[in-house]
Amino acid sequence: MWGGRFARGPSDLMRRINASLQVDRRMWREDLRGSVAHATMLRDCGIVGGEDAAAILSGLERIGEEWSETDGPPLDCEAEDIHMAVEARLAELIGPAAGRLHTARSRNDQVATSLRLWVRAASIRIVGLLEGITYELSERAIDHAATIVPGFTHLQVAQPITLGHHLLAYHSMFYRDVERFNPNLAVVDDCPLGAAALAGTSFPVNRKRTAKELSFRRASGNSLDAVSDRDFALDYLSAAAICGLHLSRLAEEIILWASQPFGFVRLPDAWSTGSSIMPQKRNPDAAELVRAKSAHLLAAFQNLGVVMKGLPLAYSKDLQEDKRIVFEAADTLELMLAAMTGMIHDIEFVPTRMREVAAMGYSTATDLADALVRLADVPFREAHHITGRVVAAAEARGVALHELTDAELTAIDPRIRREMLMTVEQSVASRTSFGGTAPVRVREAIAAARGETGETQT
Amino acid sequence: MWGGRFARGPSDLMRRINASLQVDRRMWREDLRGSVAHATMLRDCGIVGGEDAAAILSGLERIGEEWSETDGPPLDCEAEDIHMAVEARLAELIGPAAGRLHTARSRNDQVATSLRLWVRAASIRIVGLLEGITYELSERAIDHAATIVPGFTHLQVAQPITLGHHLLAYHSMFYRDVERFNPNLAVVDDCPLGAAALAGTSFPVNRKRTAKELSFRRASGNSLDAVSDRDFALDYLSAAAICGLHLSRLAEEIILWASQPFGFVRLPDAWSTGSSIMPQKRNPDAAELVRAKSAHLLAAFQNLGVVMKGLPLAYSKDLQEDKRIVFEAADTLELMLAAMTGMIHDIEFVPTRMREVAAMGYSTATDLADALVRLADVPFREAHHITGRVVAAAEARGVALHELTDAELTAIDPRIRREMLMTVEQSVASRTSFGGTAPVRVREAIAAARGETGETQT
Amino acid sequence: MWGGRFARGPSDLMRRINASLQVDRRMWREDLRGSVAHATMLRDCGIVGGEDAAAILSGLERIGEEWSETDGPPLDCEAEDIHMAVEARLAELIGPAAGRLHTARSRNDQVATSLRLWVRAASIRIVGLLEGITYELSERAIDHAATIVPGFTHLQVAQPITLGHHLLAYHSMFYRDVERFNPNLAVVDDCPLGAAALAGTSFPVNRKRTAKELSFRRASGNSLDAVSDRDFALDYLSAAAICGLHLSRLAEEIILWASQPFGFVRLPDAWSTGSSIMPQKRNPDAAELVRAKSAHLLAAFQNLGVVMKGLPLAYSKDLQEDKRIVFEAADTLELMLAAMTGMIHDIEFVPTRMREVAAMGYSTATDLADALVRLADVPFREAHHITGRVVAAAEARGVALHELTDAELTAIDPRIRREMLMTVEQSVASRTSFGGTAPVRVREAIAAARGETGETQT
Amino acid sequence: MWGGRFARGPSDLMRRINASLQVDRRMWREDLRGSVAHATMLRDCGIVGGEDAAAILSGLERIGEEWSETDGPPLDCEAEDIHMAVEARLAELIGPAAGRLHTARSRNDQVATSLRLWVRAASIRIVGLLEGITYELSERAIDHAATIVPGFTHLQVAQPITLGHHLLAYHSMFYRDVERFNPNLAVVDDCPLGAAALAGTSFPVNRKRTAKELSFRRASGNSLDAVSDRDFALDYLSAAAICGLHLSRLAEEIILWASQPFGFVRLPDAWSTGSSIMPQKRNPDAAELVRAKSAHLLAAFQNLGVVMKGLPLAYSKDLQEDKRIVFEAADTLELMLAAMTGMIHDIEFVPTRMREVAAMGYSTATDLADALVRLADVPFREAHHITGRVVAAAEARGVALHELTDAELTAIDPRIRREMLMTVEQSVASRTSFGGTAPVRVREAIAAARGETGETQT
Repeated sequence: MWGGRFARGPSDLMRRINASLQVDRRMWREDLRGSVAHATMLRDCGIVGGEDAAAILSGLERIGEEWSETDGPPLDCEAEDIHMAVEARLAELIGPAAGRLHTARSRNDQVATSLRLWVRAASIRIVGLLEGITYELSERAIDHAATIVPGFTHLQVAQPITLGHHLLAYHSMFYRDVERFNPNLAVVDDCPLGAAALAGTSFPVNRKRTAKELSFRRASGNSLDAVSDRDFALDYLSAAAICGLHLSRLAEEIILWASQPFGFVRLPDAWSTGSSIMPQKRNPDAAELVRAKSAHLLAAFQNLGVVMKGLPLAYSKDLQEDKRIVFEAADTLELMLAAMTGMIHDIEFVPTRMREVAAMGYSTATDLADALVRLADVPFREAHHITGRVVAAAEARGVALHELTDAELTAIDPRIRREMLMTVEQSVASRTSFGGTAPVRVREAIAAARGETGETQT
Repeated sequence: MWGGRFARGPSDLMRRINASLQVDRRMWREDLRGSVAHATMLRDCGIVGGEDAAAILSGLERIGEEWSETDGPPLDCEAEDIHMAVEARLAELIGPAAGRLHTARSRNDQVATSLRLWVRAASIRIVGLLEGITYELSERAIDHAATIVPGFTHLQVAQPITLGHHLLAYHSMFYRDVERFNPNLAVVDDCPLGAAALAGTSFPVNRKRTAKELSFRRASGNSLDAVSDRDFALDYLSAAAICGLHLSRLAEEIILWASQPFGFVRLPDAWSTGSSIMPQKRNPDAAELVRAKSAHLLAAFQNLGVVMKGLPLAYSKDLQEDKRIVFEAADTLELMLAAMTGMIHDIEFVPTRMREVAAMGYSTATDLADALVRLADVPFREAHHITGRVVAAAEARGVALHELTDAELTAIDPRIRREMLMTVEQSVASRTSFGGTAPVRVREAIAAARGETGETQT
Repeated sequence: MWGGRFARGPSDLMRRINASLQVDRRMWREDLRGSVAHATMLRDCGIVGGEDAAAILSGLERIGEEWSETDGPPLDCEAEDIHMAVEARLAELIGPAAGRLHTARSRNDQVATSLRLWVRAASIRIVGLLEGITYELSERAIDHAATIVPGFTHLQVAQPITLGHHLLAYHSMFYRDVERFNPNLAVVDDCPLGAAALAGTSFPVNRKRTAKELSFRRASGNSLDAVSDRDFALDYLSAAAICGLHLSRLAEEIILWASQPFGFVRLPDAWSTGSSIMPQKRNPDAAELVRAKSAHLLAAFQNLGVVMKGLPLAYSKDLQEDKRIVFEAADTLELMLAAMTGMIHDIEFVPTRMREVAAMGYSTATDLADALVRLADVPFREAHHITGRVVAAAEARGVALHELTDAELTAIDPRIRREMLMTVEQSVASRTSFGGTAPVRVREAIAAARGETGETQT
Repeated sequence: MWGGRFARGPSDLMRRINASLQVDRRMWREDLRGSVAHATMLRDCGIVGGEDAAAILSGLERIGEEWSETDGPPLDCEAEDIHMAVEARLAELIGPAAGRLHTARSRNDQVATSLRLWVRAASIRIVGLLEGITYELSERAIDHAATIVPGFTHLQVAQPITLGHHLLAYHSMFYRDVERFNPNLAVVDDCPLGAAALAGTSFPVNRKRTAKELSFRRASGNSLDAVSDRDFALDYLSAAAICGLHLSRLAEEIILWASQPFGFVRLPDAWSTGSSIMPQKRNPDAAELVRAKSAHLLAAFQNLGVVMKGLPLAYSKDLQEDKRIVFEAADTLELMLAAMTGMIHDIEFVPTRMREVAAMGYSTATDLADALVRLADVPFREAHHITGRVVAAAEARGVALHELTDAELTAIDPRIRREMLMTVEQSVASRTSFGGTAPVRVREAIAAARGETGETQT
């Protein structure tokens, strides 16, 4: 395999630890595509003759057809990796001319190119899934633009808000994720093909031509960097980790909301599982798995980062771990996004219970403080203090704020007036600042997000 | 599947994210073994009648036979997980009596038991591999108890040492790993079976009996903890991560040693690969992959740790991620150990080059300083300073220490005598402190390790 | 400082990145202690004369007195690290004889020894804190051995359990942590002192003597390993990470319990904080911080692991990061444990609310299924199915199980009898299996834990 | 038993775990700046009267002056955090009007705003440092555009390259880092101020005005997201981790190059340290510390990610960990970059040794294979095989390729001609493909980078 130098072949264990075909077979389409671009360029630059190039190109096309059914090389293929699998099959199909395809390239630049193509396609898939989940979120938010729910901080009831507003918070997160997965980011849009082993090549190649053919913005500007750089994979994994964190937060909330003490939602059968022992159970397994799998994505970034740490230039075999890490992370994130989109679509909210809890915990106390500022010109810090005493009085008596008598209120501070006490509906409606929870703002935010997709959400 | 309560089944996506059979099928033997122990106990405690119990036990035995060939349930098995696969097959084989097996247990305690059995077996495999690599290391150390190599600190030549001593440093590391993988550590030797869903059971089970049957030291003492604890898996992954770090260091050294500027070893063909473009290459791929895969093990501990973070009691579905993480880590570590053992066995050392480098960098300067202390009663700090000036003088002239003239030496300090300058062989032979690099100590250390295997290395 | 060889000193930036005194000053006591043991051994082995040794020992003692007030060297000390600070001060105090202390040792073995001593002391502190928190947990568990709370799986009400049983689950976790922090674990109880730079020494030292003096079980058996091994720190950090996960789970539950929809506990003022804007808030900040800081501990293990990855032997400066990581982790964990102990001591439970939720979600359905098995000899799987239909019927009518009429029950399955329906109290009392939630078992478990402290919890 | 231990009240512990002033005091300037913008907006929107606003603004200005000397509040300040420290001092200075500053804001939006301002400033600092190191790299690359060094893959000599080309590979990495730290990235350029606690406010604020005042592109569009989002910090930490990996690779190479077997560089005294025991040592400590600290940056991203995992909306106290993590990472990365820039500036290359190694390992074998393709029209794969046999023959005889006789060459393959054998200089000069190692390309790349700064490197 390695030319004429090796006297013995690898040991069985060496074969096992070294072989990557079971992993990298997944990028067979990208590898073929890169080979077509390379062969075309070799022909046009006169490096490979027209006849041989034609044989190579038609051979590559035929391999593409053959492997479509099995989605990759046959399972009994014994090649070390996908690159060798292509070359070996090409040699079977067209004979020695196949040996001209590897002119002016190395597996080092080839694998970097194929993985970049794969990551770009994976990023586009994620963007599609993110558009799907933001659509579902906005649909549910439209329906619930005025539905009252408790807003929590520290998981303590803080202020009443609207469910639509709450859902749009996730819309904002996923919107940022779309930008992170942008596969055209200048920072990663380089084509390594033609960097060869590490030093470039003496053949009169046209790297910009190949880059363009494969829809890269640029040919990478330094051949050593081109074969040893995996920033593009780290960027993908970093974006995946952050997106996974967003999903984990939404999953946590679904789990909380579905818990009996909350009772905010009812998960439909389609997204629940039961128990092998407890006949009454209806468990939010899908949400729990989304939450758990966010850990996989964090670990994936870490894993590749640790692989890269302290590697001298240029290519080291350590880099072979990149594909396993990236492929598994992509599978995981795609499944998480799809499952969460389904849950958001199907989840049943229980507005009466949400409204009930929204009024707990003296959630409109801030409104009283704000009203003291607005209507009685009390400095906010003092108003906050007065309201704290009102809450303490109500708590001591075990009543709601509006159940305190006028005398009780006035005894605390004479500037308090009954009309300063708000219902949760009044509270929510009053928060009309930009980005605030008032239904009018929620509807505006949805309209903005929809009308200006790809531009701005605000 | 979930009894009579569910009106609709799960969505396809739910099935995909929820199904674990493709992962947990690997512990089919452990699951059967746990079921046999449970059924036996149910029978002996009078909870299941003798006839039904006999049917269950023979059914389980038959499943064991059936699945031996495919190493698990048939690939088209549609059960959600391995537990359901066993129960479903049992029902096919013996009818409704199969439904008595799940009395007084839940999948929560069942899966915890099966995974503990699997981890224990995996730990025993690792211990075996560690014994293999320490054996190889000691074999090579015997041959090279007196072979001179440079000892490095900061990757700078520091002092000459012996190759045997260097190899035994790894022996010490792997010896500690053996203790970490001890599957009988009291801290993890608890049997969860019988904890049921989370609360224990009202059936008159004998948990200690089951624990003993499965060779656990104890039945776990708290049923909530029993089903939600994954410390035993974290302990395994922590030990794996640390063992992986040891392997990564040895791998790094092999890569360095095989590099042309070092030239300390020659990797045989069996552990090398070539280049698709550079015909002369002989790359230490296996060592690089071992180094890289240590990152996987670190990430695995992190992954499960992050899964566990902040999970309320008792069982949550998040825990299902445990098996994927543990199984992949076990596969990775076993392959790393096996490959490294092979490399240690086959690697060819180049003593002449090692000896050559061992003399570089004024590596015996410490010996001169020590001699000034010993022979001229100079305080060490002063001796260190004097020797530094000797080195500077030699460096300025571009010569070795012993190439300085007597006049030059005396000019620096009159107490310096020529016999204070050592050869690297003299230096090595002089370091006879316990644990030191002198050949006599190396041979003693090997003998101690071999004579007292399992006890102590010292 | 580096003897006579260096012509120029380090650049300012070099000084900044290299200096470690601000970090390692914390182990000044350990460094002095190691120096005392070393000097004593040097004297007794005749390597340093009696007079010089006496000067060194009294000088070290005086440094210990001087630095007690400032808990370390004076803040304006310009030494590079704590070892140099000691030696420099010693030289000021006793003159050139100070230069004899560094005979037959290096900073490489010295720093490894000092850090091991520090980690051992830190482990002992953690064990003390763990004993404190398990005591508090058992105290609260005694009071609440029969208090009904909902047991959750998947955060869905699963089965009623007792609060005492729930608290003891954490007792079990922390009990395992005690074993992990055992500072006498054979695996890490090695003394590096006398390994010198990496190769051992030619002076006639007695390493076992020094090891014994410092209460180590052994002198480390390989000098290269001795100076480059940080397993003991990784073990500490791994134990800290796992203990942190336990704390994070308890913190999560406190946060949930304190949330209005749960309402299971009331956090006293001493453990709550308010809001700068919302006058009514009472936030469980301490619990949230404990949860958050568990991430720090996970990151700390990862951090040191990544530092170690791929380091060639023997000592590399990379290892200097160890102390920052270990010290910060120790501070964090000690604060987490102390705060959580205080919270457990002070938290007020609200049994009425817990009892109320314990009956939600048809939590005694399993008891009906079990009763069908016990009293009507129905196979469990069938009993589970029947009970599922009972739950569905109750849910459809919006009633509790016992509110279904006899006719309704019989219509589902004629074998159902009214006495098969349990109250939550009956359910809890029935789970008397070993490790189960019945009050009688909870009280036994507490007694066992207390009577056999340090031995076994079961 | 625990009495003495818990003698200090738990509120002390609560204070200790909760207080953040020692950490967040570092962003006092940002907090003041945000308060000035907020107060100005409150005045202009008529929410606070002109007189009070004037008092607030002049009070804030005075605080800024007071704290300039101590770089933050006085060390004995007892406020819980920087926000409270500002408000408390303002109240001392101007009395009750200070209480009007907190109108229409909360610490939740305030801290998010201050940290965003701090991270933006930190990003700008990093960009400046990156420009510094790329400048140094290009300076050294100009000098060494034609200096021959061995190019390695798998740390095996692969092909000769130029040192300038090698240095420019790092230039490419740091150039990508500049883009990652771009503080104006749309994805993070949102101003949270005015989101208040979580729901927005009922006061007629102008959030876009405040955003503009603080140079943010937008006011954040969802108030819940605004207070609970830390994506901007994760993005910073992800960029820092990746930049740290680049630095770790360069550090690794410096360590290798400085090692005696390589001997490619000599580290000047300013960047070296010696040994306390070995008088001859000159250790690359700074490079080792840079390598080690890359682990800190990876852990920092992980740390904040794990903190965020599964947090329900909106603000939770867990988020307080963000500042410690970000500040420490920023300090670490800035020190790493500054130290590495100094090392690159000062490092002395040893071209003769580099040239010597560049010819090792049959590094021009690829050139022979390429020549067979170019001059004899041999398919590359066959040429590779022929060359492998040539290398094997040379290796067997222990000679260089050009030392083989014509007869020996022809015996292997008659198409081999002596002029196909290249010197390393010829080899390097021939690799003129775009991004290749030929000196002409290196000089072009430097010119491009310099002429088109901020645009493109190619």
